[in-house]
Amino acid sequence: MLIKNIGEFGLINRIKKLIKTDASVVKGPGDDCAVIKFSKDKYMLFTSDMLVEGVDFTGKDRPYLVGRKAIAVSVSDIAACAGLPRYCLVSVGMPGNTSVDFIDKLIKGMFHFAEKYGINIVGGDISRARQLTIDVSMLGIVEKKNLALRSGAKIGDIIFVTGKLGGSILGKHLRFTPRLKEARFLVKNFRVNSMIDISDGLTQDLGHILEESSAGAIIYEDLIPISKQARNLHDALYMGEDFELLFTVSTYEAKKLYRKKLTGFKPIGEIVDKKYGLRLVDKRGKEKLIKPKGFRHF
Amino acid sequence: MLIKNIGEFGLINRIKKLIKTDASVVKGPGDDCAVIKFSKDKYMLFTSDMLVEGVDFTGKDRPYLVGRKAIAVSVSDIAACAGLPRYCLVSVGMPGNTSVDFIDKLIKGMFHFAEKYGINIVGGDISRARQLTIDVSMLGIVEKKNLALRSGAKIGDIIFVTGKLGGSILGKHLRFTPRLKEARFLVKNFRVNSMIDISDGLTQDLGHILEESSAGAIIYEDLIPISKQARNLHDALYMGEDFELLFTVSTYEAKKLYRKKLTGFKPIGEIVDKKYGLRLVDKRGKEKLIKPKGFRHF
Repeated sequence: MLIKNIGEFGLINRIKKLIKTDASVVKGPGDDCAVIKFSKDKYMLFTSDMLVEGVDFTGKDRPYLVGRKAIAVSVSDIAACAGLPRYCLVSVGMPGNTSVDFIDKLIKGMFHFAEKYGINIVGGDISRARQLTIDVSMLGIVEKKNLALRSGAKIGDIIFVTGKLGGSILGKHLRFTPRLKEARFLVKNFRVNSMIDISDGLTQDLGHILEESSAGAIIYEDLIPISKQARNLHDALYMGEDFELLFTVSTYEAKKLYRKKLTGFKPIGEIVDKKYGLRLVDKRGKEKLIKPKGFRHF
Repeated sequence: MLIKNIGEFGLINRIKKLIKTDASVVKGPGDDCAVIKFSKDKYMLFTSDMLVEGVDFTGKDRPYLVGRKAIAVSVSDIAACAGLPRYCLVSVGMPGNTSVDFIDKLIKGMFHFAEKYGINIVGGDISRARQLTIDVSMLGIVEKKNLALRSGAKIGDIIFVTGKLGGSILGKHLRFTPRLKEARFLVKNFRVNSMIDISDGLTQDLGHILEESSAGAIIYEDLIPISKQARNLHDALYMGEDFELLFTVSTYEAKKLYRKKLTGFKPIGEIVDKKYGLRLVDKRGKEKLIKPKGFRHF
């Protein structure tokens, strides 16, 4: 049996079974970041993301933007837990015939972006490899009271996204702004019940919230903000790498949020009982059960 | 100009120039771990190591041992700073046609080893890749008073190693025991001025201590413990992946260490003024200047 037969999530489930963590680990695998006890009022967030040429970027993409993305995806994970990124390590595997100019630009993309977010690049590793491979591991900090996880969605919650979805592959995946500011604004002013970043596609990532929260959801075609780059609703539902945040708050908090008249937060549906699964209401008001799906490595 | 033209250390020096860290970073790149402020009496240690098929292991190596090694190399980095490993993330890139059985064994090798050392594997990332690539990032903790760095060697210090050197490629690199116990014993009982783990070869890693400490060294052929697997002195001086610790202590502390009659710590030379460079005294008592060298990716 091969990895491509059991698939990415089959593999993750096999690994999860082996995990044993001690009492200092608040949340192990299964969220955007691991959450570790840190101080009386703060947790540490710990996350890593591996970018591989031909998967997360192509040999034709500008190296500066590839470096930028390598840092940005981890910042997005920290944002999804509502923390602040602080430190990172960068491991890079590359062929010996990579040009120095290419690597200089890649590194500049990383450093400029890290600096903008107050992140210290404190080290890493370099290896020979056939394919350009970048793994960034990042440490962040979050106040205990502000931590947002995938697992807190409650029946009746309103589901929001922070921006337009779909078609990211045409360019946004290399230039996106992680929704760090938005995440911090949210947790400081509202009670966020659950949050995730949309890296694999709206339905797949909403599916993670539903699974971790033991809940169902109804989303409305009319409400889903579709980006100009998306060809259609399908792209907005199933394409990866939007890096918008998806979050849920109670109706009470949702009303508070509406009242602020902010354009950056779009309600797209609500959390319902698990037994309803994930449902999409189309423009004619017809409801159908849909399957969470999106980008998968295998 | 290509990466293989400027070499691994040429590349590292380019990157180092870009590094700016804030006051919470005690030590950025240039040591076995980054050192970050943590609490009144403790620092956090942060390190990552990328293992690539065909570089750090072969397709014929037992996957259980490859997984074990992926964790062990980072434990060795934490040991070199005299800390205790606590948490890690594992990013794995692999082809879709990798067998599930192979990955099961790889993962078991990781988990068994991590458990033995009280390390929480708290997450990671999975990606499609052409070559099996494993990047482990690890967090450790060290008491401020116990931190050991490469940069503290002083003229007159005695240089020690924790075991026999050379020929690791014949098997030890997959089965080595990181010298965590030894490191902790040392810093709890002696004042260690500098320490590094020998990952790239004795002279290259001693070279790092000399560079960071602005010092020179004389080592004695007669004193260098050569492993059975090494073909000759050359292997012991220049081959990588021994994962023994190399450390220096004052003559006063060295005498205290001798008095304990422990077999695990072998003196091999002494720290001298920088102007002498690195010198080897052969069996006939003849001294010659040698160049630090060892494993390089490019």
